[in-house]
Amino acid sequence: MTQALSLFEKHEATLRAAIEAIHDRGFWTPYPEHPKAYGENGDEEGKAAFSRMMNEDFTELLQKGEKGYIGEEVSPYLQLGLGIRYPEFNADDLINKAEAVKRSWAHTNKESRAGILIEALDRVKARFFEIAYATMHTTGQSFIMSFQASGPHANDRALEALAVAYDELSRIPAEKEWVKPMGKFEIRLDKNWKAIPKGIAMVIGCSTFPTWNTVPGMFASLMTGNPVIIKPHPKAVLPIAIVIAEVQKVLQEAGLSPDICQLAVDTQSNPITKKLAENPKVKLIDFTGSSAFGEYVESLPGKTVFTEKAGVNSCLIDSVSDLNAVVQNIAFALSLYSGQMCTAPQNIFIPEGGIETAEGHKSYDEVVTALSQAIAGLVNHPKMGAGTLGGIQAEATFERVKNASSLGGNMLVKSEAIINPEFDGARVASPALIELHAKDTATYFGECFGPIGFIIKTKNSDESLALMKQAAEEKGAITCSAYTTNEAMMEKIEEEMNEVFTPVSFNFTGAIFVNQHAAFSDFHVTGGNAAGNASFANADFVNRRFVWVGNRKIK
Amino acid sequence: MTQALSLFEKHEATLRAAIEAIHDRGFWTPYPEHPKAYGENGDEEGKAAFSRMMNEDFTELLQKGEKGYIGEEVSPYLQLGLGIRYPEFNADDLINKAEAVKRSWAHTNKESRAGILIEALDRVKARFFEIAYATMHTTGQSFIMSFQASGPHANDRALEALAVAYDELSRIPAEKEWVKPMGKFEIRLDKNWKAIPKGIAMVIGCSTFPTWNTVPGMFASLMTGNPVIIKPHPKAVLPIAIVIAEVQKVLQEAGLSPDICQLAVDTQSNPITKKLAENPKVKLIDFTGSSAFGEYVESLPGKTVFTEKAGVNSCLIDSVSDLNAVVQNIAFALSLYSGQMCTAPQNIFIPEGGIETAEGHKSYDEVVTALSQAIAGLVNHPKMGAGTLGGIQAEATFERVKNASSLGGNMLVKSEAIINPEFDGARVASPALIELHAKDTATYFGECFGPIGFIIKTKNSDESLALMKQAAEEKGAITCSAYTTNEAMMEKIEEEMNEVFTPVSFNFTGAIFVNQHAAFSDFHVTGGNAAGNASFANADFVNRRFVWVGNRKIK
Repeated sequence: MTQALSLFEKHEATLRAAIEAIHDRGFWTPYPEHPKAYGENGDEEGKAAFSRMMNEDFTELLQKGEKGYIGEEVSPYLQLGLGIRYPEFNADDLINKAEAVKRSWAHTNKESRAGILIEALDRVKARFFEIAYATMHTTGQSFIMSFQASGPHANDRALEALAVAYDELSRIPAEKEWVKPMGKFEIRLDKNWKAIPKGIAMVIGCSTFPTWNTVPGMFASLMTGNPVIIKPHPKAVLPIAIVIAEVQKVLQEAGLSPDICQLAVDTQSNPITKKLAENPKVKLIDFTGSSAFGEYVESLPGKTVFTEKAGVNSCLIDSVSDLNAVVQNIAFALSLYSGQMCTAPQNIFIPEGGIETAEGHKSYDEVVTALSQAIAGLVNHPKMGAGTLGGIQAEATFERVKNASSLGGNMLVKSEAIINPEFDGARVASPALIELHAKDTATYFGECFGPIGFIIKTKNSDESLALMKQAAEEKGAITCSAYTTNEAMMEKIEEEMNEVFTPVSFNFTGAIFVNQHAAFSDFHVTGGNAAGNASFANADFVNRRFVWVGNRKIK
Repeated sequence: MTQALSLFEKHEATLRAAIEAIHDRGFWTPYPEHPKAYGENGDEEGKAAFSRMMNEDFTELLQKGEKGYIGEEVSPYLQLGLGIRYPEFNADDLINKAEAVKRSWAHTNKESRAGILIEALDRVKARFFEIAYATMHTTGQSFIMSFQASGPHANDRALEALAVAYDELSRIPAEKEWVKPMGKFEIRLDKNWKAIPKGIAMVIGCSTFPTWNTVPGMFASLMTGNPVIIKPHPKAVLPIAIVIAEVQKVLQEAGLSPDICQLAVDTQSNPITKKLAENPKVKLIDFTGSSAFGEYVESLPGKTVFTEKAGVNSCLIDSVSDLNAVVQNIAFALSLYSGQMCTAPQNIFIPEGGIETAEGHKSYDEVVTALSQAIAGLVNHPKMGAGTLGGIQAEATFERVKNASSLGGNMLVKSEAIINPEFDGARVASPALIELHAKDTATYFGECFGPIGFIIKTKNSDESLALMKQAAEEKGAITCSAYTTNEAMMEKIEEEMNEVFTPVSFNFTGAIFVNQHAAFSDFHVTGGNAAGNASFANADFVNRRFVWVGNRKIK
């Protein structure tokens, strides 16, 4: 453990700064988001490293005893299988190995755990470009989003979860002499408190954000002393496999077993998720994905579960200063990664009487036309379009948007197959924009994952707000946005939406978008509505992974 | 709210000291436990006040619109109905009133809430003697236990829950300017964070500790902005009714509705607990009582639930310094309030080969004899016996101990009807002590609530530990105790029992007993095993009662 403690010394300043940041909540990061911050040849080398991995077995992992190699990732850009295969293990084998290392990890103190895990993040940092290409060719994200989301932003969230955990583990003293005055004498007890890890943890990843959505639960469980089994989506393994390999290497160097953090790969035809999740030794599960599967995970008895499921995010337009700036911002929010972000807006509420702007009243039709044109302008922009949209990860999403006209309503903007000049076979679809009426809740209260937006014509902003609130309450919402220049309306929107545990972003224009939640500042998912019970990273997100147990001894 | 803020100023020093205490975890209390600390005439006046209440309607509550008055409390000492009746309300009426005041309480800031609630505790303090007699004549506790548990110790736990909540509510800043450097420009956002209360809270009380087990959830929910409906056990209403009346008076003086904290009384023949608990508007439930009902509460969808259920607490004897001091301590722990404490030991594991003591080896039989004699000596002691045992709260408990011989095993000490010189009709039963073999788990793995203890003869201390661990893992345990002079054994016991989330008290002799958990220092119930998921009062106990929601605005 000497090695681990020297890693703690190496990284203690980063940890302390991260803890300060989660209390301060201003902007902070040790991982700049711009690729240029990571060396001149990083891009080229990362691309080459990714290319070398293709059509080879992934042999970097230190976990042993695989029964074979499997893999079925397909690049949405190349429309080709990556040909990378990962070691395959039975569910019981993974559980037994995690069980075998449980105590040694539980006994590793919080300083050593923090040192090991921050060192691993440091080594992941050196592979951000590689991870970016791996993400791009599994999720369909653009290069820049792949770099940022799976690189610096994911590392931010991992470090944040780790920092919150370290902070929580430090809140109760390790020991204390307790002296109770009893009049003529005193009672003296030596007390200690231990944060006992709950047991084997499992993290179930999603296909669109294979590291960003996986590392918070993974690092929170590891930091609180639980061995972790990571079960990525079979179509998006490589990005997190690289992260896990780096964690395993540091564990082994510190004299610990790499089985403390295992990768569990499966295939769509032979899934092992339920076998793992239902095993009574698995006590903690983090899940990102569909509501149906999320509810199944939540229903499992005897588990502590953290979920991010589907929600319906809304945007309310009441009044604006600069309509052009507003529609540009919304068009980008809708188009970014073709609406495949859990934070993408879907329902845009506009009053039938139009809105006030700094340049005077604009009719409903003028607002709708401005937004429609902004979308068309963005997606057809030769330098912006293809890069903003990226590729469509799943065939099902592609089918959904192709059949968007079957959803009813008035098709304002059709989804188009934008050509990506770099990858001419890429699966690309620009957003469809459909006009609905307030009464069409049967359509727009459902999540239409991917590039489908609805314009909902309402009587007025009060109706917009009531419907936006109802959707969040009944179906869940991860976020929402609102445009209003009216202070009273702003307060009302905040009050009503917060009451259904939905955060509001007001009057976003320029280079900030509702889609983005910043680590160390914004909670991602409040945990209070049907969109999920996890929140990256509040105190509960780590506290529920261990149990404080206190012991008392007569002196 | 001016009134509430001036209450905050009045009590801020107490609050700050309480917050310091929960971090420090040394001995601290603002409510001395000795009755003498509360005035010379307090006892007499309190007794008189209690007597005046008997056979009258309880009209102190400020909640209005009752449909009638009901009450069915019976004194275990007098074996007489108290004749006190409380206002009765329909479940829907209680819910609607809570819903109507929800927003105003949510909008009351944390300083005002803290000021109001600590002022209420101050006024409760002035009624500790009255509450003591109310507790004595509903639960059967001795006067001194009634005074301490329902008075200062309950106030301690209420203040502790409130302090943890205030501390948690202060952990995220109310607002922050977030400035992200973007190279040539900056993005500036005004952010705020709000702790949104989850909704209507309900607290379901138990018959044995009507305030001590009720106030933690009650004050945690109130402090985090949730209106609360308190549903006491129909046989133990008066102690908590007095507390609720004081909270209501302070609320009203502060210009708020007393409906923020409502009493819901029912009868055993016409219970309203399930009607309240199943109402979808009830979001939070605190429960103390049987495992069967606790599991029902835990199974309700869409609720955040905190439970203290039944468990099986054990005591392991491996080796001791002073056998006499040890058996005296265990005898007292078994006899105190006739084993009706959730922390009372039930299973005492002793190795068949006997134990080492400072005075040499003692055989198994010698240890068993010493313990049996200590129990007999204590319960028959003219000055100690009746006062230590108190009365039996429920007829079912009395029946259980009367039929203890049907449990099998070898009856070492029979339960006796000890005469209480003050109350000759009191329902009293001293502990039965039954000898079992290690294999008789079917008997001793079940909770036998009340004055029944088992001596379990094992092969050795390793077997004792394995069985004690298994019982805690399978059936839950709130606490356990162990006697050993062997350092390695002590470490092993701590390791194994902590792994099943059970705290250990080592080598308790003299005036400290495993039954007692001290507020501001000991967590009561770890929340990690089947004995319950609540822990008085860790961060989760309050954090799960509200949701952090963050809003962002373009500057």
